Amino acid sequence: MLRMLTEIRIAGFGGQGVILAASVIGKAVAIFEGGFATMTQSFGPEARGGSSSAQVILSNDPILYPYVTRPDILVVMSQEAYTRFAPQLKPGGILITEQELVRVDQVPENIRVYGVPATRLAEELGRKVVLNIVMVGFFGAVTNLVDPASLRKAVEDSVPPAMAKLNLQAFDKGFEYGAELVQRLAEGLEAEPADALESV
Amino acid sequence: MLRMLTEIRIAGFGGQGVILAASVIGKAVAIFEGGFATMTQSFGPEARGGSSSAQVILSNDPILYPYVTRPDILVVMSQEAYTRFAPQLKPGGILITEQELVRVDQVPENIRVYGVPATRLAEELGRKVVLNIVMVGFFGAVTNLVDPASLRKAVEDSVPPAMAKLNLQAFDKGFEYGAELVQRLAEGLEAEPADALESV
Repeated sequence: MLRMLTEIRIAGFGGQGVILAASVIGKAVAIFEGGFATMTQSFGPEARGGSSSAQVILSNDPILYPYVTRPDILVVMSQEAYTRFAPQLKPGGILITEQELVRVDQVPENIRVYGVPATRLAEELGRKVVLNIVMVGFFGAVTNLVDPASLRKAVEDSVPPAMAKLNLQAFDKGFEYGAELVQRLAEGLEAEPADALESV
Repeated sequence: MLRMLTEIRIAGFGGQGVILAASVIGKAVAIFEGGFATMTQSFGPEARGGSSSAQVILSNDPILYPYVTRPDILVVMSQEAYTRFAPQLKPGGILITEQELVRVDQVPENIRVYGVPATRLAEELGRKVVLNIVMVGFFGAVTNLVDPASLRKAVEDSVPPAMAKLNLQAFDKGFEYGAELVQRLAEGLEAEPADALESV
């Protein structure tokens, strides 16, 4: 997989499983694709107030400096996370949102935006708590950065055995939603992502 | 609290909750004590095979380089983790073990060693899965590095509300075990920690 160095930030509020989502992506690349990854959670005084944020770096080579400065990909699950981190996105980057929790405005034209109602999809599975894994599945489909089979294995590897089936269903649900969205966009059946936001 | 820069590594096998334990310690310092902390999980090809390791740095100042090179404190919950990481401990450092899972040998004289049967204590609470929080409680008591009240708050802040009571019990159990051990050692009722290992 072509991937020199990709910086990802995942952010939301506590209890949404930000860290697990980040860890799954790191594991998928490092353990199942032979690459390297780090996941870093920084706690500073600004971490008070229930927000949660993790940084993931994926690379073909060992990573010498694990801090994300300007993410290539930003995944946000709260409005606060969006407001805080969206300005840091690299030009040409990808913004992924929990679309019912985040209202996107003022996106630079060169940022692609993809939204998924992850909480609602998780609730359809009967467990809101798997919204983070729905996000991971969606991330997999819209970025095409990591082999979906590796991501699935990393999900399975990261949760207790009794929770594996539910989490894999959540992954698949997010992935399918993302794959369909990408296809609709490719077919031009939907407006450009940035315009589609008007309906959020 | 006097703490310039403390490097901690927590390692074990997957499913033991290494990352959550590391995250709780980081949160306690950063969110409830106004310090800074980072938690980093590095995934390389060596991460295959079910081992899990996290690095935590605690500091009074923002942390510029989050990688632990030589830990001041090493917490190990598997023999493999002990074998791999114990040689990296700083002179004067502290080694904390899950004593029924790790057999300690060849400890340099200037390393203090503290063991706790965390899995068994967790099983006494009816849920083996909280062994990581038992370890955090024990860590709190034997290192005296972080205010126990801050650690407790971080535990509560890091688990789903329905699991808070169980996890706080686990924390208290580990803490009490550690506090009693430290007191026995102080009273000279027990051999020096390094000698006490013979009975492991």
